This record gives sequence, C-alpha cells and structure tokens, in this order.
Amino acid sequence: MIVVMRHDATEENIRNVVQAIEQCGLTTHLSKGSEITIVGVIGDKSKLSKINLDLLPGVEKLVPVTESYKLANKKFHVGSSVIKVGNCEIGGNEIVIMAGPCAVESKEQLLETAHAVKKAGAQILRGGAYKPRTSPYAFQGLEEEGLKYMAEAREETGLAIVCEVTSIQAVETAVKYVDMLQIGARNMQNFQLLKEVGKTNIPVLLKRGLCATIEEWLNAAEYIMSEGNTNVVLCERGIRTYETATRNTLDISAVPVIKSKSHLPIIVDPSHATGVRAYVPSLAKAAVAAGADGLMIEVHPNPSCALSDGPQSLNPDDFFKLCSELKPLAEVIGRSFNGHE
Amino acid sequence: MIVVMRHDATEENIRNVVQAIEQCGLTTHLSKGSEITIVGVIGDKSKLSKINLDLLPGVEKLVPVTESYKLANKKFHVGSSVIKVGNCEIGGNEIVIMAGPCAVESKEQLLETAHAVKKAGAQILRGGAYKPRTSPYAFQGLEEEGLKYMAEAREETGLAIVCEVTSIQAVETAVKYVDMLQIGARNMQNFQLLKEVGKTNIPVLLKRGLCATIEEWLNAAEYIMSEGNTNVVLCERGIRTYETATRNTLDISAVPVIKSKSHLPIIVDPSHATGVRAYVPSLAKAAVAAGADGLMIEVHPNPSCALSDGPQSLNPDDFFKLCSELKPLAEVIGRSFNGHE
Amino acid sequence: MIVVMRHDATEENIRNVVQAIEQCGLTTHLSKGSEITIVGVIGDKSKLSKINLDLLPGVEKLVPVTESYKLANKKFHVGSSVIKVGNCEIGGNEIVIMAGPCAVESKEQLLETAHAVKKAGAQILRGGAYKPRTSPYAFQGLEEEGLKYMAEAREETGLAIVCEVTSIQAVETAVKYVDMLQIGARNMQNFQLLKEVGKTNIPVLLKRGLCATIEEWLNAAEYIMSEGNTNVVLCERGIRTYETATRNTLDISAVPVIKSKSHLPIIVDPSHATGVRAYVPSLAKAAVAAGADGLMIEVHPNPSCALSDGPQSLNPDDFFKLCSELKPLAEVIGRSFNGHE
Amino acid sequence: MIVVMRHDATEENIRNVVQAIEQCGLTTHLSKGSEITIVGVIGDKSKLSKINLDLLPGVEKLVPVTESYKLANKKFHVGSSVIKVGNCEIGGNEIVIMAGPCAVESKEQLLETAHAVKKAGAQILRGGAYKPRTSPYAFQGLEEEGLKYMAEAREETGLAIVCEVTSIQAVETAVKYVDMLQIGARNMQNFQLLKEVGKTNIPVLLKRGLCATIEEWLNAAEYIMSEGNTNVVLCERGIRTYETATRNTLDISAVPVIKSKSHLPIIVDPSHATGVRAYVPSLAKAAVAAGADGLMIEVHPNPSCALSDGPQSLNPDDFFKLCSELKPLAEVIGRSFNGHE
Repeated sequence: MIVVMRHDATEENIRNVVQAIEQCGLTTHLSKGSEITIVGVIGDKSKLSKINLDLLPGVEKLVPVTESYKLANKKFHVGSSVIKVGNCEIGGNEIVIMAGPCAVESKEQLLETAHAVKKAGAQILRGGAYKPRTSPYAFQGLEEEGLKYMAEAREETGLAIVCEVTSIQAVETAVKYVDMLQIGARNMQNFQLLKEVGKTNIPVLLKRGLCATIEEWLNAAEYIMSEGNTNVVLCERGIRTYETATRNTLDISAVPVIKSKSHLPIIVDPSHATGVRAYVPSLAKAAVAAGADGLMIEVHPNPSCALSDGPQSLNPDDFFKLCSELKPLAEVIGRSFNGHE
Repeated sequence: MIVVMRHDATEENIRNVVQAIEQCGLTTHLSKGSEITIVGVIGDKSKLSKINLDLLPGVEKLVPVTESYKLANKKFHVGSSVIKVGNCEIGGNEIVIMAGPCAVESKEQLLETAHAVKKAGAQILRGGAYKPRTSPYAFQGLEEEGLKYMAEAREETGLAIVCEVTSIQAVETAVKYVDMLQIGARNMQNFQLLKEVGKTNIPVLLKRGLCATIEEWLNAAEYIMSEGNTNVVLCERGIRTYETATRNTLDISAVPVIKSKSHLPIIVDPSHATGVRAYVPSLAKAAVAAGADGLMIEVHPNPSCALSDGPQSLNPDDFFKLCSELKPLAEVIGRSFNGHE
Repeated sequence: MIVVMRHDATEENIRNVVQAIEQCGLTTHLSKGSEITIVGVIGDKSKLSKINLDLLPGVEKLVPVTESYKLANKKFHVGSSVIKVGNCEIGGNEIVIMAGPCAVESKEQLLETAHAVKKAGAQILRGGAYKPRTSPYAFQGLEEEGLKYMAEAREETGLAIVCEVTSIQAVETAVKYVDMLQIGARNMQNFQLLKEVGKTNIPVLLKRGLCATIEEWLNAAEYIMSEGNTNVVLCERGIRTYETATRNTLDISAVPVIKSKSHLPIIVDPSHATGVRAYVPSLAKAAVAAGADGLMIEVHPNPSCALSDGPQSLNPDDFFKLCSELKPLAEVIGRSFNGHE
Repeated sequence: MIVVMRHDATEENIRNVVQAIEQCGLTTHLSKGSEITIVGVIGDKSKLSKINLDLLPGVEKLVPVTESYKLANKKFHVGSSVIKVGNCEIGGNEIVIMAGPCAVESKEQLLETAHAVKKAGAQILRGGAYKPRTSPYAFQGLEEEGLKYMAEAREETGLAIVCEVTSIQAVETAVKYVDMLQIGARNMQNFQLLKEVGKTNIPVLLKRGLCATIEEWLNAAEYIMSEGNTNVVLCERGIRTYETATRNTLDISAVPVIKSKSHLPIIVDPSHATGVRAYVPSLAKAAVAAGADGLMIEVHPNPSCALSDGPQSLNPDDFFKLCSELKPLAEVIGRSFNGHE
C-alpha cells in the first residue's frame, strides 16, 4: 500500500503517518517529491486494520498495490485449475457446454430438453428449481420437486446437473441431488450463502453480480474458497450498463482479464447477457474465440411457452446448429469439443 | 400491455396473436397503422403468464404500461404512509435522523456515540452487528453481542435502534432486540431474506441495491409487503456509475421519483453514497431540501480508528454542527426537526 | 507518479525503470517491500512523455498522484473565482438563476419568457439558437436570427444572455451578441471548439459531458483556460447511468467535489438532468442546499407547444413559485437571492 | 407512436388528445382497458413536431414504436451494404483489418509500421494526425504533415489510409489525402462535423461514442447519410461502464445488434476498448467470431516509446502472430482473410 500525502502536509503530519504504520509492526519507505510526499508501506497490510490511515491529518489518499484475494489469485497458484463436475472437466482443453431450461417446469419438459442438449453436445444439464424473480407475483420454481426431476434426467442421460441455490435451506436440500451448485448474479455478495456452499465439497458455479467489478467477483470466490471448497468456476453473464438494446452488456473482456488474474476457469452465459435469442449464437462463438472454458446456454423445447425467460431460450434445433458451428471453431483455436455427434 | 407487431407481420401473424391473448381470457384492441399494427391487451395480464407473446411469429416487442408492484404503488393507496419506529414517525412532517457507527465495535464506543447523536438530534441509533464485507478477511461484526450493546444503548438513551440483517438466522436473532430491521444494498434482491422480514411485524429499512432500478427497488418492497409487513421505509444510498470521485453516485432524483410513484417514506444515506466525510454535510442538506423524510448518517467517536468505513464517518462535533444547520433548513421548507437542542 | 513493479520483476527490470526515468531528467525513490517494489518519480512528469513506462519489462502499473489540470486546480489558486456575466457575478454570495426556453422559437415566445423569468428573479436569459439534436430530422434552431432575438430580449429586460455554440462558425457569430457562451454536454470534448472559445474573452458555461468524469470535465475547462480565457463556469446537468426513471442521473455530489478540487463556480441544470418537469423544483432546491452557485432552468410560456424539450420545461407560474421557495432557502444557508420580488 | 393515458384520465382528457393528434392530420385508434386507455397514432409522426403530446392533461407517457433513423435502417434497405475503401471492400465476405499507430509521429515510424502491417495482412493503414487528447498538455498530432506521411505510406505499400478528423478545417485538409475519414468517439455527436463529412464522397468510419446507445449511433450515421454520403462503416470501440479492469467495456453484443437493425458494416477496435495490449488478441478473435466485418488494431514498432496509447499497441511481431490466428478462424466461420501470407 502507498500513502499519498497532501501537497500541504507538514513534516509533523508525515512523521505521524510513519509512526502509526510502524506501531502496527510494519516498515515504511519515504519518497519526498517536489510537489508531494509518498509513504510506502511494507509488510502484511492486514495489520493496519485497526487504524484508518486515510483519516490522519495530511493524508490525500491510499493506493492499494496488491489484490485482497489470495486463494483465487494466479500469483500464488501454479498453473490453471481444472474443476471436475460429474465426468467432465472444466478448465482443461475441452470446451464444456451447460444447457437446459431457465426453470424446471415439468418432468416431461426437462427430459425432452435433456435428451436434446445431450445429443447436441452438452455435458451438463442446467435447470432452475429455485428462481429469484424481480416480482413476488412471478413463478418462483418447483423447489425440491424440480431437483428430483433434474436427478432423474441425469439417470436417463448421463449428463451432470447444475442448479441454482438461493438460500442456506436450498443448499441443504440441493447437495443431496446436484453435481454443481450455482450462485446466481443477485446472490454474488450474499456472503452467508457463499460461506455455506464453501463448506460443501461440491463444485460451485459463481455468476458475476449485475454490477460487480472483477475484483469483487474474485473476492466472492475467495469467500467460498476460504471455507475449504476450492472448486469454483466463474461465469460471466453480462453487466448492467446504460445500453438497452440488450438486457445486459456481455463483458467479453472479462475472459482475458480473469485468465490474467486468476487460475480459476471461466465460462460465459450469452443467454442472460443479451436476453434475446437471436443474438445468442453470435456471442457464444465470441466467447469461445476469446478463450472461455465453456458456455451456459438456455434451451427450451417450446420457448414461446416457457414460464421464465422464454425470449432468450434457443429451441433444440437452433441449439444443435450452434453446437455444430462451435465444434470446428473450438478446434481451430486449439481446444476440443467432444460431445457433438 | 401493448403488443407491437413487426412491419412485415402477416394478417395470419396478427390473427394468431389476437387468438392467443383471447384464449387466456383477455380482450384485445387492434390498431392498424400505415407502417405498423399494434394489439392492445385489456384485462389482468398475469393471465398471460403461460405464454411468451414476444416469441410468436411477427411480434416485434411487448410494451408494459402498468407497474408490476401493487402494494407499494401510490396509485392504489390513499395518502402517504407514516411508519412508526419506537417513538418516532417516518414519513410525517418531521425529518428523522438515524445515526451511529457503521459497525458496533465495543460497548464503550457505542454508548459514547449514542449519547452524542441523541444530543445532536438523532432519534434512531444505527449500528452494524452483521457486516457484509467484500473481502472474507475483513472484520465481519460482533453479531448477537453487538445487538445486545445496541439494546443497552436504547435503554440508556431512549433512542430507537436499527440493525442490518444478512441472513434468516440473523433475522431470528435480531427480532428479539431491534426496533427496525435493515436490508442492505447487497441483499436487496435476496428474496428469501425479504420474505423472512416480511413475516415479522417489525419496520424494515430497505436500502436500494448498488445497481437496482427504482422499479426493482419497489418490487423488492413488494416482496416484503406481500408477506404482510407493510412497514417499509426506503433508503437511497448511491448507485454504481463510472464516476470514481465518490464511492457511489447519490441518485438524488430518487427522492421526487419515489414520492411520485409510491406512498412509502424515503430517507437518504449520504455517508455510503459518497464514502467521503467532507462531502456528507452538503449531500445531507441536499436530501432534506429535495424532500427526503430523513437521513442515515455514520458517526464514530474516533473515525481514524473505526474498524469499518472510517473515511465516511463524521465525528460527534461535525455531526452536531450538521444537525444545527439542518434544523433551520427543514423549517424553511415546511418540515420540523425536533431533536436538536 | 508511482511505478508499481510486478511481484516477479527482476533486479534488472527495476534498474531499467530507474534508469529510464533518470535519463528523462527526473529523480527516483525506491521502496522495496516483501511482495512488491515501488518506484516513486519526483519532478515534472511531462518530461516522461517520450516513454511509456508501463511497457517496460516488469512494470505492473503506473499510479498518478497529481491531477493533470493546473489552471482549474484549487491547489494553485487562492480563493474562489467569481465570474462576471453582464451585471451579475457567479461564484460570489448570490445564487444566480439562468432561465429561458430550450430553443428560441420566435421573438414573441422569447420576449414573453424573458419578462416572466426576470420577474421571478432570474438574472440571465438562456435560449438555444444552435440546437444539437440526436436525429437530423428534428428542429435544429434559428441560428443567427435566434441570437438577434436574444439580444433584443436583453435590451428590453436588462437580463444578460447565454447561448450554446456548436461550431467554430457559431462562435464567430455568437460573440457579436451574447454575454456568455455555452458549451453543451455533447461538445465537452470537442477540443477545437474549446480552444476557440478560449481565445475569446467572453465567459464560458461549460456543461459536463454525458459520461464525463469530473477529472475530464476539469481538463476540458483547462483547454479553455490554457488559451487565455479563465472565465469558466461549470454546469452539472446529469450523467448517463442505467436508471431510466429520469432522462439522466443528476450527480449532486459533483457540487461538493468541484468545490474541493477547483476554484471555478458550479451551477446545476435540473431540467436536463431529469427530463421531467415535476422533478425540477425538488432538484433545484437540492442543488442550492448542496452549495451550487446557481441554477439553469428551462422555462417556456406554453410547454405543450415547445419545439424542443417541452416535457422538462416549467411554465412561468411554476417558475415563479419555485423562485419564491428558493429565496428563503438560499438565505437560510447564508447565500442571497436578490432578484425575486 | 402510442399514447398511454394515466389511469385517472377523464373522458375529456382522452378527447383532447385524440383531437390534437387528428388536427395534425393523423389518424387515431382508441383502446380502452379496465385500468388504462391507449391511443394509437397512425401516420407520419413528424407531423406531431409542433405539439408536446406528453404534456397534455391525462397523458402518462408516449411509447415510440418505430426508429427515428431511416437511411441506416435495415427495414428500408435490401441486403447488406458493402463499402469500397481504396481497393478493398468492407461488409463483403472478407474480413478487413485496419492497423497502424495511434498517432503519426514521424515518417520513419509510419513507414516501418506500414510495411509490417501490410506483411501481416492488413489492407488499410490507420494513423492519427489530429489527436483529441483529454489534457491540453498532451501531444496533439502532426496535423497536415502527418497526412502527408500517410499518403507517402500509401504510395510505398499500396495500403488504403484512414485518418481521424476533429474539425471542419481538418476535413477540408484531409479530403486531399485520405481514402477514409474517421469520426472519433468524442465527436460522434458533433453534428456539424457529421454534416461536413456527409457532404464529401469519401467513406466514413464512424466510431461509437463513449456512452452512446446503439440508437444514437445509428442516428449519427443518419446525419452523415442524410447529407448524401451513404458510405458509412460503424466501429464499436468500447463503452464506459463502472468496470475499471479495462479502459472501456467492449460491447461485443453491438455486432449482432447492428446486424439486425442496420445494413451498414461494423468493425471492432479491441485496442481502444481494452487499453491493454495483452487482451487485444483475445478480443480480436471474439469480434471476428461474433460476425464483425473487420478490425481496427493499433500497432507501433516500439510501443514503449509511443507518444500516444502505447500500452494498448501491439508490436509488429505480435500483430503478425494475431493475423496468422485470425486467418483460419475467419475461414472456419465462412469468411475470407486474404492478406496474410
């Protein structure tokens, strides 16, 4: 950390800052410039947690120079993490596709979708049993019944299954059924929930919050990892901006940024990012070309009758076509895409 | 709701849309223009929840014309709501100030602050016992011990107390101590938590999410109210934008917008909005002049040693001075400010 | 400036950085920490303009510690600037109101408005003769004819006049008529135009760009001032965010931030900030309470027939009422408001 | 256009609205719902420009149902536009690369870069002679001297050349030298400048404004096209958001959105979008995979000595490597990439 002093800071101000830091057991380095004086802080800055340096007289601002996340940080980890979910691996050479309906609506709808996405090349079935909805009057999900259908779909197809959890109670139930727990965008900073999934040994798909910075997102991963569960996969799903032509703005740059800052795998969800079915294939290809380790795509057998997010769901034929285009694209950039026939 | 048809929609497309709507038990009105045809939908649109009209062939887009929240909506409520918290009323003529430390750190710190803010004119003591923090390595709060200190401070000073709850477990504990439950910005769409506080009969302070629209915020209030607890007070605390000169951007317009759309009271938190102590008095006055029903302000006896958010906390002297300026300001716009000596 | 080295930077990397800086005639200070090394740069950093330090091997990032604007900077200027426009002063004790129609439409419309705003207490008449419009098919302004009407309105009422200029040609014409030149939000980084108004000796009202940071805004002021014209008044008019309940989001915090960073006066335009007439009075009062030096408000004799921005214009009666409320508000915070009868 | 009436609008309010519309020579359709009445407006809505419908008593809001741009609109144009620049075509099957330095610094720097980018596969040389810079103290460009070097580089290499113009004077000079005029992000709503390039017959590269919506961007294209010059190519270069890990946020969704709304070609500039050299290749591939018609990439022979935007420039080797990866990627998605050896 660097302490930048005000241009009118006195010698006494500077001495006080140095003293305050050193009393916490840290070392300082002084740089006196013509306009400004800077105090470098050397050592473990968590020792400073008892004082607010920026409130000492003469202090202009503090500039952090190291990230606050450790376990998720690439600097302290050799190589990239590969997370095993069911029989597939995320973060390795293969592009992994998670597909399925936004919400589980019935056993028939789910099984029909599961067979279709498996045939196209998906390896993980997604399906929401606990749905966070903006309005309390919208469909809220089938809850445990939905999880049971998901488990049945796994039996029938061999696909691994991922489901969102929205409360500690939902975690307790879901761990009995699923291969991967999903933390949705709205809960990315529900720290109690992050700690709870961190206590399980089930892989976690951590969606980026609607207006979370990449730094906050990696700190959310840190919450899970610091409880012992290091099997975290990140999912970029669009951020909120002023543009209204799409539901959210897919931050495609998050792919190379995460690859440079963290060892964790990252996948992309073009369905929630745009909210518009017609734009999904274009963005799915962009994500793979950018270096994402996988995709999460909404597929519904009859999008015009979906109870949730129909406008952004592909039908099985469109999804099959997309996968047939993704396979050669993955190969030309040196990745594999095994599922598609 | 209005269905706008594509300019190349066929007669058959239009017939299908009309038919689909009428099969749900609703009435339609057709407007055929030179360029475009519009289908007006008349009746309770929740009956349409089983179909996705925007996916029918020929449909360009749907335009909602009514809000999805009902209980929080000014249209369906006569007059403004006044919420009683302890002995004070929020939403009436009086400006109500909630003040205190970001986090409860010790009994001494809390009591010292409580006496100071009471003297200056605050009527409600704030203090965090459960702290949502970006990094898992930051101070997380004293939990139930903190709530006990808050209750003691109430005994000593007569101030009502408000505390944030971050989980269902925290709600269960907090209801034994507090006069008002606070839902923080990060949990504004933690729908399980909203429902839980909606089942209590304790007033709720609902902070706006970091990137929540006013519509989403009122829908979050609707979650609480639809469980039976209509004692909701809204709190604007800054939204996330590209500007970095302040921690967040105080959306002062939210005050007149909420007053035009809802009957619920609204207060403003200039401390979290700016993150900078020096800007707090200016924004506190702006909020009162704009028509806010109250303020939430962080006060700490020794901000340079605060464990959380020190840089934005006022010391007791600054807070006293601010209140002495707010009193005549409140009066000149026709409100009262009773506490200040 | 501070150069933060990567945690894996070698001794040679560090030596190279130090050498590169010193070859530019600057001095360095080294701080070697357990995790990271920092190089402080001392002296005039414009000497570094020939090298890109952040591209040297081993460099993590550069952290600027001083602002790039000098003439607009409070640090290098004693006291606050007071800008004289016609007979009134902006930045002194008095709150100055600029009011008038968005666009000059006819002589009658303008004169009627001018008399009305003068009576209510405005000291400067605003009126657009050159209108920047999103669509090329919208009304573009009366150009020089509009300026002539403005000058006539000044003769009749004694009000000073301010008009927007959108091109160098418009500046050349406008200087013959107006007391103050306005640079609109869309042209805040039209640097040729900034330089051109900087060559005149007429006061400039510089509106903040739709998504300009405060730092960029002050740099835009610097462009004008560096050409010799230091008579710059800043105008906050709302920034672009994700919220759609208002046309823009008024960044009320800009008032105390500018007051802390610059000596230039700042006024607020609540009409463009919200785009909704009903919200204007609330925000006008908030701006004065926050410490703004004045307001710019759209007034039209018949808003429902305005050719531009009618929905946000007040009619003369509403404006009169607002001014009668602003007068005691200004006085209670220690300012004066002289015009209102 | 649709007029939504307030739920408490009277019969008289509705009659007045209908009458006002019909007096402008338009037709109306009334839809009376249980909660709300809607008035559909049929015919050319520019006839309504003399009245502000939303200010008539009882009106809740206006909902536009058609776009304000016509010439740039896909609805009124058969097929996609192909724009010829020098000997290459943008918007056809081939991916076109524009590359070169941010700023022209010297003849040597430019020629070295021109040969390098030609060898790698670029078809158009970019190079700034007029530089819009945030601070007036930063390097502002070589102006006409820079244009001459650009023309020399064209002679030597056969590459077409594109240069930014920042004022009407710059347009007058540039038309004598360049094959394509560039309008930069900061000038996207400099309407005088748009009209001026619209009067030339030289193709225009129109960059998206820092916080422009796609609708505003297409309206800016409309300004150029409505003056007679329909040779417009759009360039997505990142928008401003709260995320600071990259300089801007590349809105990759703009590619499919523009393809669905307009017939104009779209290219992507990953250099300005991220501001970080290491992220450029990932985003360049993403853009091509998403369906962009080309790329604009900054290349500098010695990025660590560039006078402008060095940190985001690729060196010639990195650029050659990127092009060698883009070629098979383009082919696998059915496009061609001819230049690369």
